[in-house]
Amino acid sequence: MTDTVVSSATREVVIGFERPFVIIGERINPTGRKLLAAEMRDGDFSRVETDTITQVAAGAPMLDVNAGIPLADEPGLLAKAIQLVQSLTDVPLSIDSSIVEALEAGLAVYQGKPLVNSVTGEEERLERVLPLVAKYGAAVVAISNDESGISEDPDVRFEVARKIVGRAADYGIGREDVVVDPLVMPIGAMGTAGRQVFHLVGRLRNELGVNTTCGASNISFGLPNRAGINAAFLSMAIGAGMTSAITNPLEPEVRQAVLAADVLAGRDPHCATWIRTYRVPTETARRPSRRRG
Amino acid sequence: MTDTVVSSATREVVIGFERPFVIIGERINPTGRKLLAAEMRDGDFSRVETDTITQVAAGAPMLDVNAGIPLADEPGLLAKAIQLVQSLTDVPLSIDSSIVEALEAGLAVYQGKPLVNSVTGEEERLERVLPLVAKYGAAVVAISNDESGISEDPDVRFEVARKIVGRAADYGIGREDVVVDPLVMPIGAMGTAGRQVFHLVGRLRNELGVNTTCGASNISFGLPNRAGINAAFLSMAIGAGMTSAITNPLEPEVRQAVLAADVLAGRDPHCATWIRTYRVPTETARRPSRRRG
Repeated sequence: MTDTVVSSATREVVIGFERPFVIIGERINPTGRKLLAAEMRDGDFSRVETDTITQVAAGAPMLDVNAGIPLADEPGLLAKAIQLVQSLTDVPLSIDSSIVEALEAGLAVYQGKPLVNSVTGEEERLERVLPLVAKYGAAVVAISNDESGISEDPDVRFEVARKIVGRAADYGIGREDVVVDPLVMPIGAMGTAGRQVFHLVGRLRNELGVNTTCGASNISFGLPNRAGINAAFLSMAIGAGMTSAITNPLEPEVRQAVLAADVLAGRDPHCATWIRTYRVPTETARRPSRRRG
Repeated sequence: MTDTVVSSATREVVIGFERPFVIIGERINPTGRKLLAAEMRDGDFSRVETDTITQVAAGAPMLDVNAGIPLADEPGLLAKAIQLVQSLTDVPLSIDSSIVEALEAGLAVYQGKPLVNSVTGEEERLERVLPLVAKYGAAVVAISNDESGISEDPDVRFEVARKIVGRAADYGIGREDVVVDPLVMPIGAMGTAGRQVFHLVGRLRNELGVNTTCGASNISFGLPNRAGINAAFLSMAIGAGMTSAITNPLEPEVRQAVLAADVLAGRDPHCATWIRTYRVPTETARRPSRRRG
């Protein structure tokens, strides 16, 4: 049993084998969102505020924050976004950048213990990101690719994950603070993408004892009715043992698939969250009050 | 790899590890449907006709037919229902009764190779049902309970299934013609019900080499938003290796969860069925023709 504890100044969230699945809200990310990118570059963070509030209201227990805008001051923008989001909500954050200076700027302002997203198995990344994770006492997402790219063989990806966990230990980062991303490929392009992930998640859990996460929406890239594929993928990934995912909590089908899979995997004792979320309101509760009318 | 082949006079359906999941439409069953029961007892089979046509139109590749009405002539009603359904559709049928005489009456009129639903591990049932299955060259659903009832231990249920497969072999019925039902309990009453089934399905497939089926809707008994639980359960069961289920093809969420899980389990090559089902019609196809207006 491995518990990854992340926190804000006032709230802890635990990612773990026997815990409810953790949805990390994916919306605060200008990649592929031209309007958001343009606004953030101009210092207008109003959409970041909205994305924070709506995702937390939809039940996301964590949020990912990314400020990857070409030719912009990404470290400055990411630090500003993190401070803003933390002023609006107490859910813990994932600090998301491919630029090490931006990760450091985000870590420097973050209140609590964040998830650093991410490190890969590439030597240069390991040597730059892991010391930062250790310095700030954070947890880290480990993506299972290295200098040779993304292997189509999930057992090769497993070995990359094992290497990262070993290197993290050298820096004093325990395996409970390494959350492995097995890498989700589009099923429309690679028919084995689903089975690869389910197989790899099982090995990561049983042999390496680590928690897992992924960019779940990748699975449905290019297909119609993406929410339908995403929902089934998350249910099946939870069945295979996955413990968190970076995805869109605003899709009702995704949220429902996650909550139902928690029930079926025995992670929602007495179905309490399911019943609270989906019970039909009583007639009294639904009917507008006549007395006030 | 185990293929269970069932057929009507003109169509074959294969239940198998690498095949698309087979939904066996559950609607033609008077249990819990008072109106249908009263009509069938009075010889009015119009609702059976409707249930046949709508389930096949919704994509069910097989239908279950049950005529279990207290104090009625179940053998006669079941035979009549089967003849009627076979006059309306060529999808293969599951002949469903707890009364051996009714199973025999159904088998006597059936055109093709049906699925007999069901035999249990009880000695008296084995000795009466298996000779019938052998005589008519049918396949059979094996329910994993016996004289001692339904064990809460899935490994005990596995041993019951193993016993039935062994006894079937004594009658010349190969394991490819035994489809095991691991027994789905309501998750609201037994929090381990989901994990039990997923564990058992894996053992049945890997150790016993048999196909599996279940009454999937049981899982959500007593809970709100049953379709949401049923959908996630089916996706996860397919991920665990289940190959068919008796369920309601008229629930769009159930059908979507099954088709998506087929994609993710690699059972829908090139996502062809998914794309055909869910692609957005082109503007031309959606727009009412102006020329005719």
